[in-house]
Amino acid sequence: MRHLRLVLLLASAAALHAEDGSRLWLRYDRIADEPLRAAYARILRQVHLVEDDGEDSTGHGSPTLRAARDELATGLAGLLGSAPTITVDQVFHRTHSPSARAAGFDLRFGPGGAVIEGSDDLEVLYGAFALLREVQTRVPVARLRLDSSPRIQRRILDHWDNLDGFVERGYAGSSLWDWADLPGRLDPRYRDYARANASVGINGVTLTNVNADPRVLTAPYLAKAAALADVFRPYGLRVYLTARFSAPLDIGGMKTADPRDPAVAAWWRAKADEIYRAIPDFGGFLVKANSEGEPGPQDYGGSHADGANLLADAVAPHGGIVLWRAFVYSPHDANDRTKQAYNEFQPLDGKFRDNVLLQIKNGPLDFQPREPFHPLFGAMPKTHLALEVQLTQEYLGQATFLAYLGPLYQECLESRTYRPGRDSTVASVIEASGAGGLSAIAGVANIGADRDWTGHPLSAANWYAFGRLAWDPALPSAAIAEEWVRQSFSNDPRVVQGLGAILMASRPAVVDGTMPLGLHHIMARGHHYGPGPWVDGGRPDWTAVYYHKADAEGLGFDRTAAGSNALGQYAPEVAQAWGDLATCPDDLLLWFHHVPWDYRMRSGRPMWDELCLRYQRGFEEVQAMARQWDGLQALVDPERFARVAALFRQQAEETAVWRDGCLQYFQQFSRRPLPPGVPAPAHDLAYYEAIDLRHMPGDPSGR
Amino acid sequence: MRHLRLVLLLASAAALHAEDGSRLWLRYDRIADEPLRAAYARILRQVHLVEDDGEDSTGHGSPTLRAARDELATGLAGLLGSAPTITVDQVFHRTHSPSARAAGFDLRFGPGGAVIEGSDDLEVLYGAFALLREVQTRVPVARLRLDSSPRIQRRILDHWDNLDGFVERGYAGSSLWDWADLPGRLDPRYRDYARANASVGINGVTLTNVNADPRVLTAPYLAKAAALADVFRPYGLRVYLTARFSAPLDIGGMKTADPRDPAVAAWWRAKADEIYRAIPDFGGFLVKANSEGEPGPQDYGGSHADGANLLADAVAPHGGIVLWRAFVYSPHDANDRTKQAYNEFQPLDGKFRDNVLLQIKNGPLDFQPREPFHPLFGAMPKTHLALEVQLTQEYLGQATFLAYLGPLYQECLESRTYRPGRDSTVASVIEASGAGGLSAIAGVANIGADRDWTGHPLSAANWYAFGRLAWDPALPSAAIAEEWVRQSFSNDPRVVQGLGAILMASRPAVVDGTMPLGLHHIMARGHHYGPGPWVDGGRPDWTAVYYHKADAEGLGFDRTAAGSNALGQYAPEVAQAWGDLATCPDDLLLWFHHVPWDYRMRSGRPMWDELCLRYQRGFEEVQAMARQWDGLQALVDPERFARVAALFRQQAEETAVWRDGCLQYFQQFSRRPLPPGVPAPAHDLAYYEAIDLRHMPGDPSGR
Repeated sequence: MRHLRLVLLLASAAALHAEDGSRLWLRYDRIADEPLRAAYARILRQVHLVEDDGEDSTGHGSPTLRAARDELATGLAGLLGSAPTITVDQVFHRTHSPSARAAGFDLRFGPGGAVIEGSDDLEVLYGAFALLREVQTRVPVARLRLDSSPRIQRRILDHWDNLDGFVERGYAGSSLWDWADLPGRLDPRYRDYARANASVGINGVTLTNVNADPRVLTAPYLAKAAALADVFRPYGLRVYLTARFSAPLDIGGMKTADPRDPAVAAWWRAKADEIYRAIPDFGGFLVKANSEGEPGPQDYGGSHADGANLLADAVAPHGGIVLWRAFVYSPHDANDRTKQAYNEFQPLDGKFRDNVLLQIKNGPLDFQPREPFHPLFGAMPKTHLALEVQLTQEYLGQATFLAYLGPLYQECLESRTYRPGRDSTVASVIEASGAGGLSAIAGVANIGADRDWTGHPLSAANWYAFGRLAWDPALPSAAIAEEWVRQSFSNDPRVVQGLGAILMASRPAVVDGTMPLGLHHIMARGHHYGPGPWVDGGRPDWTAVYYHKADAEGLGFDRTAAGSNALGQYAPEVAQAWGDLATCPDDLLLWFHHVPWDYRMRSGRPMWDELCLRYQRGFEEVQAMARQWDGLQALVDPERFARVAALFRQQAEETAVWRDGCLQYFQQFSRRPLPPGVPAPAHDLAYYEAIDLRHMPGDPSGR
Repeated sequence: MRHLRLVLLLASAAALHAEDGSRLWLRYDRIADEPLRAAYARILRQVHLVEDDGEDSTGHGSPTLRAARDELATGLAGLLGSAPTITVDQVFHRTHSPSARAAGFDLRFGPGGAVIEGSDDLEVLYGAFALLREVQTRVPVARLRLDSSPRIQRRILDHWDNLDGFVERGYAGSSLWDWADLPGRLDPRYRDYARANASVGINGVTLTNVNADPRVLTAPYLAKAAALADVFRPYGLRVYLTARFSAPLDIGGMKTADPRDPAVAAWWRAKADEIYRAIPDFGGFLVKANSEGEPGPQDYGGSHADGANLLADAVAPHGGIVLWRAFVYSPHDANDRTKQAYNEFQPLDGKFRDNVLLQIKNGPLDFQPREPFHPLFGAMPKTHLALEVQLTQEYLGQATFLAYLGPLYQECLESRTYRPGRDSTVASVIEASGAGGLSAIAGVANIGADRDWTGHPLSAANWYAFGRLAWDPALPSAAIAEEWVRQSFSNDPRVVQGLGAILMASRPAVVDGTMPLGLHHIMARGHHYGPGPWVDGGRPDWTAVYYHKADAEGLGFDRTAAGSNALGQYAPEVAQAWGDLATCPDDLLLWFHHVPWDYRMRSGRPMWDELCLRYQRGFEEVQAMARQWDGLQALVDPERFARVAALFRQQAEETAVWRDGCLQYFQQFSRRPLPPGVPAPAHDLAYYEAIDLRHMPGDPSGR
């Protein structure tokens, strides 16, 4: 018998609690730098909360003020090691005259501590989160004064969650809402969800999928939604529901859902009354109608305005609103699909009730990696227009690819529409709607039951960025990324700069790696994850060939006057710039033009070579992000490090598949060699066409 | 302007990290009692790991030994505040003679520290977890010696998880296995899952639903399963897969799946070879065949033995096994459904290969709250028999009701079969199979992606109890409950006793409150959650009336010789005791007898009164558990306290619905008044019959 003795000395035990991302950006870890911690603690030994319009007479503060106090106590105790003394002042205006200050909060620091003054209790709560953000991001606060008010009134997350727990285009597990559990049991995550939203100013949540199940409007489900609303209320988060237009038939026992039938109108009024009895601060309805098979007013010869106004009249007595989606296109309309929403809605300008918003996706197609802004922005001056963006990543690599979408939101918001005024932008259009008392922005949530909420450890940045931009569309997306990194990972400058750079590089990497130069809708069928430029057959506007129009001459969709003239839907300044090959930006080239393979690009290269090099650049950008991330290994927790590193490996593999599959396919038409620097594909075209992914999450066709 | 100042002083900040149950029973929180902690630390400053059969030559120990070391380091650092010195001895047996000791581990404490000696590296790991269990449960270890070896070889969790993330009869969120993520990304939960299993000795996991998707046997999914197996391997957890019998047709391009076709046998052999290339320690196949619509050998005129042996021959060269389920019953068999498995399988005794186990549910029907043991146990002495129990709670209130199932497992394991020997029990029958080299027990998992793994904060106790009883079927379930409480909640004697008592009371409360006195299968259709004694129509053996047979004379299924004679399938001793009304236990009365409403029970009461009082007792038992739990509020964390309190409220409401709905229904036949002490139902029968629950989790018919 032989003996071998190994003596293993352990320098330190592994961390007891793995970092699972569940705390999001509200981590409140103790400040390690002792002098800095002491300096903050000195300033923050007292925090004064001042509510300008206090109406509470209990002597204990409203639930919202208590939430502010609790968050500050917990957060500062974590950051500083000891909780401050917190006082609450409620200032009553005897005359009910307008508040001394406009909506918003004022945060200031002085010798007497910090003062958070808000126009109401919710604004105080927002101020409390702002204070915690300043400390978490290590802003020197000694003489800071921050005066902030939201630029858009309704800042809403749209959940595409079905009642059976499935999240359409959701890649972070099943639905947060446990309908079987509700209303009796309230998952603690509901409150954490509300806290996270309030921390970035999000004040609304649409619980259910736009492909709506009418049963959510029945009494049992209203009781469940009301239980959620009760949890959310102290955090200023209002509940909205999707309404299936045929609900009067589906659940109401009616024979019709005709918007002009008085009995139908009465049914909706009674239903709205019932909802408001359960949820007194119910936000309103979000409606997808006459789109992709959903029922709508056109089934009865009515218009979208007839449908929207029907529901709007039902909720109006209660202060509710209707968000009517402009995402419509018809299987019977031979027009370029990107033109159809404008054609349907623009003529209805001025026909909608005052409590209706038309909710318009950022681009005229459908959440592609890059789209021009939607031509309806600026084209309906007599209608409230709301912007809808996605936080989830349909068409953008789902929860596998890193795609920080702050720059996409910013790109859209900054887009100049030249209508109604010369200086108009998408942001000013949706904000201007607010002058009349109503403005909104909606984000399709990327949130599920995964422990880290969003599936990819870095994609909570999209949730954060959406909220921050909804509050102030002028915030630079890079600054938002930095804020998020500091709170979610570290204030170490190497992490702040390194991870900040990765985030900012990520969306261009997806565009280059999958649909560069304005290519769009060339993804695989169904799950929309991998490449599918060869997708053909069936409904034409659901194929790829409909959009890329590759042929022996060139590539791209001619939307100039010589083609579909979708450009004619934009202001003349826009149409002119984008309609001219010489002034159209490279990024939108193939969106608006059918471009010859040998067209000389700004780079001096033929279009084909440029296309190939963009795909290759996308691949290299992913590798570069992965390398940068590897360099941060010592500075981030091992759990998130390993997960993100594995995701980058997968993204690189998938991006190579995109590059090789698309170039193999397009090369059939270009009949040109790959330029130097672009490697030969690993497989033949048949290999890529045969890839058949199964069971991708979030794919309704794969259930 | 009026001023109101509220000064809110905070005694202490709220806990920063909410208790979410994610650590299960492996919490390793620091021992608060300082002298006790110091005493443990003195004894445990050194831990020696001794592997009797070490074959590792790297000098670093095997991955399993490293896992043992890491767990001890992390666990003891948490419990004691400092990590011990850990040494590893590997003892090589030059002659390859049998190890000095049998399979198992030996744990002893002395002046030189703790010594964990194992017959191989996995047994060392089990010993490490045992050591941590002793400390976590505050066992005085100074002179402790623990010698332990498993009584059953294969201790397997069966996951009824579909490839799309849906868990059939799963009530804790979606599947743990993220198939879209695999094999590239490995959720950290996979390792935690393996740790939890190893900590209680579970050594196998069947990844997929018995209603099998053949695609799991294709190359892409085998790569995914292999990635999981790689994570699980250091923890001794082997992967098994479910095999759809028609896989040669479904995915193999064959024209038949006939078990007697040589080409089919060759296909399975090649498939097994492929699997073992990916997963060298693959456990084997679990098969549901010719049951509830699944394909099987009978489709080709073959027997279950033909089918099982076909797969067994394929995996035999690799040391694999086949677990062939005995849960079969036919829509065309007019026999009492509970008799059909015995009728089909008993005649095949001796016909199965040596690497086949017949996997038999605890009872002859289907996981009801209480069943007699399955008559096949003891009736097939020439066949390896495995026991299948459920951890999930189909028919037992899902994740809403508390049902600690340790007592159910124990009740079954202790049941005397009187076959093959006079002293035989179910436990000895399944252990005896091991003498020939093969024994197994399987538990249908209650685990999902919920943060607390099992949905109800207390139902992880079922996971724990299954593992502990699989290791040693003689462990008392109350002692196991106490172990679990100490590790998962607290060693405070009030919690240990109070929560222990709640757990032990919980399964009787479910039996009494839903299906007392041997009633069975009277639940609602589809989701199987609420009451449904009125369920009738369609396939008879899927109704309730088929089983309760209520009429003007009485209630219950006559399975004596005068009836279906299911009793004839048991040993004479059993058949006689249960066949006689005078000796049949109350708990099985209506399972085996059609009993007159006025039959005088042991209590002296007529059966109808006893039935009513049992339902009422079930309701009161839930209220009592809730009160006991309320008394523990100050001693448990607020998160789990609130969640469990809410669940008890819901369980009480649902139990009242069971009581009132069932008694309203049966009263139509008994035509007798409710006895004193049983309140009048809140609603009429139509109300209960009309309850239509939607979107219950885990219900395949509700998707």
